[in-house]
Amino acid sequence: MAYEFIEILIKKRNGLKLNPSEIEFLVKGYTGGSIPDYQFSAFLMAVYFQGMDLEETVHLTRAMLNSGSCLDLSDIKKPRIDKHSTGGVGDKVSIVLAPLVASCGVCVPMISGRSLGHTGGTLDKLESIPGFRTDLSLKEFKKQLKKIDAGFIGQTEEIVPADKMIYSLRDVTATVDSIPLITASIMSKKLAEDLNGLVLDVKFGNGAFMGDYKKAKQLAYFLVQTGKAFGVKTVAVLTDMNNPLGEYIGNSLEILEAIETLKGKGPKDLMEITLTLSEKMLEIAGISGGRNLLIKKIKSGEALAKFREIIKFQGGNTDIIDNYEKLPVAKNRLRLPAHRTGYIKKFDTFKLGMLATRLGAGRLKKDDMIDHGCGFRIYKKTGDFVKKGETIIEIYSDNRQRIDAIINELPSVLLFDKRPVQKARLVRDIIR
Amino acid sequence: MAYEFIEILIKKRNGLKLNPSEIEFLVKGYTGGSIPDYQFSAFLMAVYFQGMDLEETVHLTRAMLNSGSCLDLSDIKKPRIDKHSTGGVGDKVSIVLAPLVASCGVCVPMISGRSLGHTGGTLDKLESIPGFRTDLSLKEFKKQLKKIDAGFIGQTEEIVPADKMIYSLRDVTATVDSIPLITASIMSKKLAEDLNGLVLDVKFGNGAFMGDYKKAKQLAYFLVQTGKAFGVKTVAVLTDMNNPLGEYIGNSLEILEAIETLKGKGPKDLMEITLTLSEKMLEIAGISGGRNLLIKKIKSGEALAKFREIIKFQGGNTDIIDNYEKLPVAKNRLRLPAHRTGYIKKFDTFKLGMLATRLGAGRLKKDDMIDHGCGFRIYKKTGDFVKKGETIIEIYSDNRQRIDAIINELPSVLLFDKRPVQKARLVRDIIR
Repeated sequence: MAYEFIEILIKKRNGLKLNPSEIEFLVKGYTGGSIPDYQFSAFLMAVYFQGMDLEETVHLTRAMLNSGSCLDLSDIKKPRIDKHSTGGVGDKVSIVLAPLVASCGVCVPMISGRSLGHTGGTLDKLESIPGFRTDLSLKEFKKQLKKIDAGFIGQTEEIVPADKMIYSLRDVTATVDSIPLITASIMSKKLAEDLNGLVLDVKFGNGAFMGDYKKAKQLAYFLVQTGKAFGVKTVAVLTDMNNPLGEYIGNSLEILEAIETLKGKGPKDLMEITLTLSEKMLEIAGISGGRNLLIKKIKSGEALAKFREIIKFQGGNTDIIDNYEKLPVAKNRLRLPAHRTGYIKKFDTFKLGMLATRLGAGRLKKDDMIDHGCGFRIYKKTGDFVKKGETIIEIYSDNRQRIDAIINELPSVLLFDKRPVQKARLVRDIIR
Repeated sequence: MAYEFIEILIKKRNGLKLNPSEIEFLVKGYTGGSIPDYQFSAFLMAVYFQGMDLEETVHLTRAMLNSGSCLDLSDIKKPRIDKHSTGGVGDKVSIVLAPLVASCGVCVPMISGRSLGHTGGTLDKLESIPGFRTDLSLKEFKKQLKKIDAGFIGQTEEIVPADKMIYSLRDVTATVDSIPLITASIMSKKLAEDLNGLVLDVKFGNGAFMGDYKKAKQLAYFLVQTGKAFGVKTVAVLTDMNNPLGEYIGNSLEILEAIETLKGKGPKDLMEITLTLSEKMLEIAGISGGRNLLIKKIKSGEALAKFREIIKFQGGNTDIIDNYEKLPVAKNRLRLPAHRTGYIKKFDTFKLGMLATRLGAGRLKKDDMIDHGCGFRIYKKTGDFVKKGETIIEIYSDNRQRIDAIINELPSVLLFDKRPVQKARLVRDIIR
């Protein structure tokens, strides 16, 4: 390939379509070190403005996928289906969904992420279970999947190293917010998992990375089409992230809520989204029974039993399931009362997530330490009626200083209205 | 200034206007090393797409100007006026204009450039005069200006170091072609010359960097307004670069042609542009007489005498003025005959310039060696009638291999038409 980087850059800058070998040249050149950061960042900004069509995005995904090794799960005979969420506040769906769907006979190999910015991370949440290991080797992970059908690990060095490099550069060059770049980043990692199917939870609203519904829908389309181009059955569900999901935000608090949900006592919104996504996974897997089967697996305790197996296999203390005292939940709690009577008109979910992060539940920088015990309990959501003095949010934290740093900003996450406010549908659309 | 680079980048990426201290933060941060190349290149690409308005451009120019030191020519009592061209093919105007205008009582401190890509460079041309030094110190240069009112030097390390850094980055990130960035690059360097006035030759057409007339006109407007914002009388002349200027392309060949022009025997197009630009310089300087005075200075030999003084002062052999044999012009010449009869419809001036560079007259990379003797003589221009077999271009080169490498491509720079073709006006507009 006798390409000149600058010629490909000019082509994209001028809004022209790149061919597969040009895209391959770029990714190989950047990961191999022949294209320096300062040139690749200019290319990323050109893509931010000029975009990439679906075909280019598929080729970018492939080039990134080829930068590393893939899992080989071909000796697992059950259908291998994963779920991926674009990220939100209070989103503990994976922790409920993985054991639930696995208990229906699907293999769910979850390669999950960590907290960044206003969102939490599945791995951080799981690590609040004493002893729980997320750093299994791929060999251990495969063994686990073969035996109990589900497990959670983090991104490894071998899988899609190009994404790690490109994402780090996007992060510091304001080029994260680009549909083709997001698509290639998500899909290259998911396609490396050797899946038969993938269900995507594409969130929109003020707690999502892609706030705008139209853009989220376009992202969903790109994600689904890219999955299909690789022969993976892919479905995306567009879900509303204008409120935190469930009642709890914070690592051990969300584990607690996930367990409650597996016990059949979960909040309605979390159940609704978990069941919708799980149903799609069963559908793709060709397993009949749908929502009824899922509810049955919860009622029978099989879903919870599967979670117990996962915790055990990954070295965690399974006592937490029956004794929440064993979770490192903060002892100190502070209730925030409503300053007026009315309906909740709007939740600033992004801000709430950022306040949780500042409280210690998440990370602003990659190497920030997580406080697994802190977080919020949310008593009211958009559309709810609140009486003056009633608790709307409860703070969990044993760190007085951090509470003081955020307490004055907390009331501003809620906007009130005298008139009743309609609740939005949680599941807005399904893209196949 | 407690700015975060990423916030300023996002602001520009989203099309918002930057304030003076944000722009200063960027330039200081980049030149000081706290903003790395990979972030600044993303910013440059964002500017490529979102632009900068005139006010931002003035602030960028100022921030760049402040990155280094300025000339102090305040003890020169004559009006100090420079001319700058955006670059073209066969453009030897500076070499004629500097002595001509100086002979009328104007101080002309020319800080000139070198060949790059398809264009030649005034310094390279002058260095084909045996002994001619362009690396004078600023102290020597000031002495020269005081004594003989004109001289030519190159860009120094002290003047606008920010431009050198930013231009190098633009060059490899496809962000050269941006009106605010071009304006700040040109004007920061020109404003460091401590001028009273500046005349800009903004070229458009297929041999110019800014091919499109509308964009060239917008550039001219930005350049003029930026000059004015710094209190420098600035005028821009929009000139047609759809043909090479004059008959010769190549370093010693252009010196020869410049001398012929100073002797009153120059080609019409070169004379027209030189006189137009020179006239504007006299106007700005407040010297009456205009075109008639200029023509008088050529006829009387005073302009040529001034050039002789310049050559002498800068260490060159003045014998070349009367004996062209002393110039290192290639001995070997090859005539290219017209392959058909007709009118010249179009000249691919960019390509002709690139072929001259490949012949050795210019540089593709910064450290390429220049062959001062090679080049082209152009016998016909757009609109001229040509008979089959008549010479249209003559190649000058003593390097057989290089001639072979370009000879087959040379005929394609000319497009013929059976019908007469109208000649375009050379000077299209004047922007004040």
